[in-house]
Amino acid sequence: MASLNFERTEYAKRLAAVKKRMTAEGMDVLVVTEPSNMNYLTGYDAYSFYVVQAVVVALDSELPIWTGRFMDAVSAHSTTYLPADHIIPYTDHYVQSTERHPMDFIGRMMAEKGWGKATIGVEMGAYYYTARSHAQLQKALPNARFEDAELLVNWVRIVKSEQELDYMRAAGATTDLMVEAAKNAARPDIRECDLASAIVAVQLKGTEKFGGMPSSGAPLISAGPRANEPHPAWNDKLLGNDIPINIEMAGVCRRYHCPISRTFYLGKPAQDYRDFADRVVAGTEAALGVVKPGTTCEEVEAAWRASLAKAGIEKEARLGYPTGIAYAPTWGERTASLRKGDKTVLEQGMVFHVMAGIWIGETGVTITQTFNTTATGYEALTKSPRELIVID
Amino acid sequence: MASLNFERTEYAKRLAAVKKRMTAEGMDVLVVTEPSNMNYLTGYDAYSFYVVQAVVVALDSELPIWTGRFMDAVSAHSTTYLPADHIIPYTDHYVQSTERHPMDFIGRMMAEKGWGKATIGVEMGAYYYTARSHAQLQKALPNARFEDAELLVNWVRIVKSEQELDYMRAAGATTDLMVEAAKNAARPDIRECDLASAIVAVQLKGTEKFGGMPSSGAPLISAGPRANEPHPAWNDKLLGNDIPINIEMAGVCRRYHCPISRTFYLGKPAQDYRDFADRVVAGTEAALGVVKPGTTCEEVEAAWRASLAKAGIEKEARLGYPTGIAYAPTWGERTASLRKGDKTVLEQGMVFHVMAGIWIGETGVTITQTFNTTATGYEALTKSPRELIVID
Repeated sequence: MASLNFERTEYAKRLAAVKKRMTAEGMDVLVVTEPSNMNYLTGYDAYSFYVVQAVVVALDSELPIWTGRFMDAVSAHSTTYLPADHIIPYTDHYVQSTERHPMDFIGRMMAEKGWGKATIGVEMGAYYYTARSHAQLQKALPNARFEDAELLVNWVRIVKSEQELDYMRAAGATTDLMVEAAKNAARPDIRECDLASAIVAVQLKGTEKFGGMPSSGAPLISAGPRANEPHPAWNDKLLGNDIPINIEMAGVCRRYHCPISRTFYLGKPAQDYRDFADRVVAGTEAALGVVKPGTTCEEVEAAWRASLAKAGIEKEARLGYPTGIAYAPTWGERTASLRKGDKTVLEQGMVFHVMAGIWIGETGVTITQTFNTTATGYEALTKSPRELIVID
Repeated sequence: MASLNFERTEYAKRLAAVKKRMTAEGMDVLVVTEPSNMNYLTGYDAYSFYVVQAVVVALDSELPIWTGRFMDAVSAHSTTYLPADHIIPYTDHYVQSTERHPMDFIGRMMAEKGWGKATIGVEMGAYYYTARSHAQLQKALPNARFEDAELLVNWVRIVKSEQELDYMRAAGATTDLMVEAAKNAARPDIRECDLASAIVAVQLKGTEKFGGMPSSGAPLISAGPRANEPHPAWNDKLLGNDIPINIEMAGVCRRYHCPISRTFYLGKPAQDYRDFADRVVAGTEAALGVVKPGTTCEEVEAAWRASLAKAGIEKEARLGYPTGIAYAPTWGERTASLRKGDKTVLEQGMVFHVMAGIWIGETGVTITQTFNTTATGYEALTKSPRELIVID
């Protein structure tokens, strides 16, 4: 028996929403390759996305089809609600072969299902939908018509259900424990990697109620002279004294991520650094202050921008992104952005990470908040205070 | 000053080997998008591959060009040897935009460099080279000729230098500590996620000499009724009694991975399970026994196959793959495979993970070995004994 994280009715709702969009776009069939989208529609959860796999949704088929490598079919059986005849694996000689490509098999299977002349949506810019996958699928289905369906499923994912929010709250509880773990572990005489170890040990344990999982990427630890790097790999040097450490990380529950960034300061920060941090916090508060259904993404960013402008600070990068289910390489959903020009209107159940980070010259401060949009405002999905954390 | 893991001369050698292959294939320019290949050629190391980025190698330019998101340029400065004018970032409004794509920028930059009519190699099936990236790059360079260069750099990577092997030995030392950690932590009354936490805490600490890093994927923990799943996500159930646990994991040093799988048994395994494990070990020994320069990949697999056949066991999947530098989603290099039909000839310095795993019916055993090919045979890069680990 498969172990599912949601009621069958919830999966059915998701599928119906996707089919509605497919109909609106004139697509008969949708080939879903982004792992988070595959998980969303079927529950499929395994670290098999380094080989070609897909969930195929068709208007003329009630349930989707999972297709992938034969050895991973057993995970399709154990993590999805799909009946056995909707799990259609390819044999191992398609794997990383110079002569055969899994999309040959998948295309043939689709033709056999009667979709050889269909209008087929593919996720053109999705992770793991490579240029080769696309070329081979087109070759295998010469009479089909291909349309871009990138982000079609992602846009359905942007509004979270109550059950999804519960998992995200649980993920947030783990995130808060990770902040505590960092606070307790960070000392001048330990190495960056030792700090990472202390944080991730807590991340993977999770809480008593919900065990932890790895996030789509390991924590980002930007310490000292590298506090101005947003996405560095940590090293094995001692942290040292009188340095800021920006850490971006996420607790995870049932694949749902709840990210946070905090700046920790080892030693006594100078007053101007404290002031800098206060401005980032004030900007975040200003952004959160306008969150409610009806506000647009660009209005959230404008509130942040206006707050920062008072202190003469500008930030080029976007202020944030929606988050939820994630696999490597990112916990962003790639749909809306909190930035100028984004007219996406907030609705109840939309979850964003307000990635309030400022990197200026040699240093940076990141004090962020993942929120859910409620009927009247926002719900903070992590409870860690929004402040510079000084460890002296 | 950038902090490099290798001498400049070693990077120069790698680049020369890649240019030699480009020349042989008639390519003027190569757009390298696989993160491990980018790292190999320039040292670039950051968790920024969730946005479009590339290293561009051209025959008429001594040094490659790094291009990516503006905020990650600082990591290009801190982790590569590239001079400032070879680090060419795009602004943030290209990121996950519906109107602009980073490949528009990259194509334009390439045209400005005089490569608008060049023959350009692209890594068609590489991770993170999406169908959209390819379409946009073609559009941005309408007069260029595109050729497939998938695995071109990967094939150069297959033979390791002494310095690379030193890092892989160090990674192996961490791997061995992870095996010990698993042995010490695994008990019937802890959850799968707690076991994972104990293992990863050690992975990230690494050794005193070399701090640890996260592997391209978290450890795979296949416990009890899920011991027949090769790539599962762990859960938060108690391990329980009398179960096998297959764990696949890798210590990492300077981005170099040294993987291992071991089967742990909680309780007293039945004699037929022990026999099963002995056969897997015997098969591995048989495969390792024929490793030396001159042996082909299929001969290694044939030795394993013959050993298993004596016990009436067949394995469909390939027996192994080369490993080294890795980012999500895999630590396999995707070039040679230890399998029937693969005529790749082993050379000194080639490193493979003999992924000796058998999944039969409801269970599985995985007892594997990462080896380096020496002048006369093989060097085991992890020292953990090849045996079923019984925890009673």
